[in-house]
Amino acid sequence: MASALSEPPAPSIQTAIPGASTNAIKRELDVVFDARTTQMVIDYDKSYGNYLVDIDGNRFLDVYAQIASIPVGYNNATLIEAAQSPDMVSALVNRPAIGNFPSRRWLNLLRDGLMRVAPRGCTQVFTAQSGSEANELAFKAAFMAYRRKQRGPDNQSWSTRELETAMKNQAPGSPDLAILSFKDSFHGRGFGSLSATRSKPVHKMDIPSFKWPQATFPRLRYPLEEHEDDNHAEEQRCLQEVEHILASWQCPVAGVIVEPIQSEGGDNHASPAFFQALQALTQKHGIYLIIDEVQTGFGATGRFWAHEHWGLPAAPDIVTFSKKAQTAGYFFSDAMLRPDKAYRQFNTWMGDTARVIISNAVIDEILSKNLVEHTARVGDILYEGLAALSTKFPQLVFNLRGKGKGTYIAFDTPDASSLLKEMRNVGINIGSCGVSTIRLRPMLVFGEEHIPILLDAFEKVFARSAK
Amino acid sequence: MASALSEPPAPSIQTAIPGASTNAIKRELDVVFDARTTQMVIDYDKSYGNYLVDIDGNRFLDVYAQIASIPVGYNNATLIEAAQSPDMVSALVNRPAIGNFPSRRWLNLLRDGLMRVAPRGCTQVFTAQSGSEANELAFKAAFMAYRRKQRGPDNQSWSTRELETAMKNQAPGSPDLAILSFKDSFHGRGFGSLSATRSKPVHKMDIPSFKWPQATFPRLRYPLEEHEDDNHAEEQRCLQEVEHILASWQCPVAGVIVEPIQSEGGDNHASPAFFQALQALTQKHGIYLIIDEVQTGFGATGRFWAHEHWGLPAAPDIVTFSKKAQTAGYFFSDAMLRPDKAYRQFNTWMGDTARVIISNAVIDEILSKNLVEHTARVGDILYEGLAALSTKFPQLVFNLRGKGKGTYIAFDTPDASSLLKEMRNVGINIGSCGVSTIRLRPMLVFGEEHIPILLDAFEKVFARSAK
Repeated sequence: MASALSEPPAPSIQTAIPGASTNAIKRELDVVFDARTTQMVIDYDKSYGNYLVDIDGNRFLDVYAQIASIPVGYNNATLIEAAQSPDMVSALVNRPAIGNFPSRRWLNLLRDGLMRVAPRGCTQVFTAQSGSEANELAFKAAFMAYRRKQRGPDNQSWSTRELETAMKNQAPGSPDLAILSFKDSFHGRGFGSLSATRSKPVHKMDIPSFKWPQATFPRLRYPLEEHEDDNHAEEQRCLQEVEHILASWQCPVAGVIVEPIQSEGGDNHASPAFFQALQALTQKHGIYLIIDEVQTGFGATGRFWAHEHWGLPAAPDIVTFSKKAQTAGYFFSDAMLRPDKAYRQFNTWMGDTARVIISNAVIDEILSKNLVEHTARVGDILYEGLAALSTKFPQLVFNLRGKGKGTYIAFDTPDASSLLKEMRNVGINIGSCGVSTIRLRPMLVFGEEHIPILLDAFEKVFARSAK
Repeated sequence: MASALSEPPAPSIQTAIPGASTNAIKRELDVVFDARTTQMVIDYDKSYGNYLVDIDGNRFLDVYAQIASIPVGYNNATLIEAAQSPDMVSALVNRPAIGNFPSRRWLNLLRDGLMRVAPRGCTQVFTAQSGSEANELAFKAAFMAYRRKQRGPDNQSWSTRELETAMKNQAPGSPDLAILSFKDSFHGRGFGSLSATRSKPVHKMDIPSFKWPQATFPRLRYPLEEHEDDNHAEEQRCLQEVEHILASWQCPVAGVIVEPIQSEGGDNHASPAFFQALQALTQKHGIYLIIDEVQTGFGATGRFWAHEHWGLPAAPDIVTFSKKAQTAGYFFSDAMLRPDKAYRQFNTWMGDTARVIISNAVIDEILSKNLVEHTARVGDILYEGLAALSTKFPQLVFNLRGKGKGTYIAFDTPDASSLLKEMRNVGINIGSCGVSTIRLRPMLVFGEEHIPILLDAFEKVFARSAK
C-alpha cells in the first residue's frame, strides 16, 4: 500500500512528457470519454505527499495539486485511515438522501466536524458536491432571502399569481433578479454560476446566460509599495462602478459574488480596504455578499479562509467552499438565508457523506499539524526566493504577487504555456491562469525542503530561456 | 459489521414515528443544518437489504429507497467489497482532476465498467455528480452542437464579436437558445435544470429562470385499455403542441428533455408511439432529444433503461443518469455532441472516481443476479396485487399505472400525505409524488416475498380508512 511510502527526495524524469504509456491510454480512453484534456495518466498508488507519479514512471513535485484541490498530500495516512473506517464503508454503500434520512453520524460530522472551521460568525452550513453547485445554492439562498425582505414580515404567503407564474418561468413568481460578479472572475460552470463567471470565452461560448452585470475588479500594479496611490484610485474606481451598477441595473441585484483572490482569472488581488468597502456597499443596499472561497479556502493563503486577511467588521453573509475541502457547500451567518419554508433548498443527495468524512480527516490533519501557520511561514520564504528570481530574470518573472498570502503566489511571464511544459520536463507539475500567469498552488504540506527544488527548476528553465 | 446481517422477515415498529430519538437529534442538527425535512434519523449499520432501521429501533420495509436511489439494498455485500478495496481507498484519498490527471484505472472503470450498460447506440460517456449536473451538462452539449451546426462546417472559428459578447452574457456569443421541457416534469434544481423543471412552485419560487417553453405532457386515462382513442388523441394534441413551439418559440429551441415516466410530477406515462413521434420531431428540426433517466434508469422499469420499452428506430442522442447509478452523467450517441474544442465541457473533478467504483459494483450485482429481469417479473406480480386492491378499495386506489414497467408502479389516492404517515406506522417507508399519488420505488432486490407484506399493510390502512 502507498501508506508505506515515504516522500522521495526529488523529482525524477524518465521520458518525454507526456510519455508513451500516457499517450497509449489516452488514445484508448478517448474512444469512450473526451480525453483531449488528459495531461498525464497517473499511478496514484506510487504518488506520495507532494510527489505525483505518472504511468511512465516520471515523478513530479506537484505544485498544481489537481487544480488546487489536494490539501494534505497524496496517500496521506490520516485520510487513508478515514477511508478505511467502517463509517466510510457505510457512507459509500448506503448513500442517504441526507435531507430526509440522515445517518446517526451526520450531526457529528457537521457539528463536531465541518463547523469547527466555519468562518467567524457563520453558524450554519449547507452541503453540496462541487464549487459550482455551492455557488448556485448560495445564489438561490440570496434570491429567496431578498424576496422575503421585499415581501415584508406580514406578507410571506405566495399569491396565486406568483404560484402560476413561477411554473411558467415568468415574473413575479420567477423574478428578474441578478447577481453581480467581477470581470475575470470564475465561479463555476453551471448555468447560474457560469452567468457569473467571466474569465475565458471557452467557458461561456454558445451557452445561454442570465443578463447579469459585471464590475471591473481592481488591476493592481506591482510592487504594491511603489504604486499605493494608483492602486487606491483603481480600487475606488471599481467600487464606484459597483455602486453605479447596484443603483442602475435593469433589475434588482440581490447579491454580489467575489473571490478573495481571482484565481482562474489570473491571481488578481485587492486590498482589505476594497473588500471592507464592498461589504459596506452590500449592507447599504440590503443585499448579500457571497465570498467564493472555493479555491482560496482551507489554508492556502496562510489563513484558514482568505477573507480573514481583511478584518471585516461584520461576519460574511455566505462563504462557499470546495476543492481542498474535498467536499463542497456554503456556510452562512444570516438566519434569513435559511429559506422560510422547508424543501425550497433541497435535492436528493444534498452532498455526499463519504466526502464529508474525508473533509473531516483533512480538517483533523490541518488543525493537528498547524498546517495553516506552516503554510504562512513557508509561503513567506518561498515568496522571497521568487522575488530574487524576479530580480535576476525581470523579463521572465514580473508582477510577482501574493506576499503574505501563504503559498498562494503568482507571477506573469511572457509565455506561460511554454514555461509549464519546460517545468514538467524538469520534474515540476505546475499550473497557469489568466492570460499568461504562473500560479503556485502547492499543498498545505509543501515544506521548506521543497523550495530549493522548485526554485532550482525555475532557474534552470529561465537560464535556458534567457540565453 | 452489517454485512453479517441477513434480511429480517418483517417490519417492526416500536414507537410513534418519528420516534423520540429522531426528534432529539433533529433538534440538535437543526442548529447547524436545515433539518426541517428530516423524516427519520437512520442507523445504517442495522439496516439491511430492503429494510431501513431508524435510531428509535423501528424497522421499515423501504419501498422509497432514498428517493428512488438505493439500487441493490442496504449493506449489499458486493458494494461493501468494492468500498473496502484498495482502489476505493486510493480514489477517496487521491481525488483527481479526472479531465487532466485520470488514474490508471479510469479507462477500465469506464470502458469495462459504465460502458457495459450504455444505451444502445451510445458510444461515449461524460461523468458528473448529480442528476441536476448531468442534465445541465447535457443541455450545454446540445447548445454547443446546435451552434456548431448553425455555423456550418467551414466556419467553426469564433468571431471577435462572439468572443467579446460571450464575456458580457450577450448574443451572439451567449445566444438566446432554449430547451423545451414538459409541464409537470422534474429535471433538477440548478439554474438551467430548474428552468426545465415544472413540477412544484416550492422548487421554483423566487429563482430567476430562462424563458424556456413547456409543452403539455399527455394525461392518460386509466385503465389504458378502456381509453385507447382518448389517449391517442391526447398524445397527438401534445405532439402538435411540441411542434408548434419548435416552429414558433421566440428563440431557437436546441433540445427537448423528457422523462420516460414523469416521476416527481406524478408518475405520468405516455405510449411508445408518443416517444417515437417525439424523436421524429426532434430529428425533423435538427435538434437534440435528451432522455432524462435519472429516476427511471438502472432497471426499475423492468428494462435497464426505461426508453428500451419504446423501440426507438434510432439511438437516443443523450441519456442522463444518476440516483440508482450511485454516480451521474450522460451517455451520448452523436459525435457532434463532443464539443469541437477541448475544455468546453470540463470542470475540476468531472465526477468522482469513488462513486464510479460503487456504480460498477452496482452494475456487477445487477448483471450477475439478473436483477432487471427479476424486477420485471416481480413488478408484474405486484401490479396484479395492487389491481386487486384497487378493485376492493376503488375510492382509495385509482388510476393504477405502471403495468409492465417492473416495480415502477403508482396510483392516485385522495390523501397521499396521510397515507404515507399511516403506512409508516405499520412499518412501510413509502413515497408520494405529483398532487396525490403514491409511487412505489422499491430497490431491484425487492422480491416476491415482500409483496404480501406491502399489500397487507395497504389493506390494513385502507380498511381503517374505509370504515
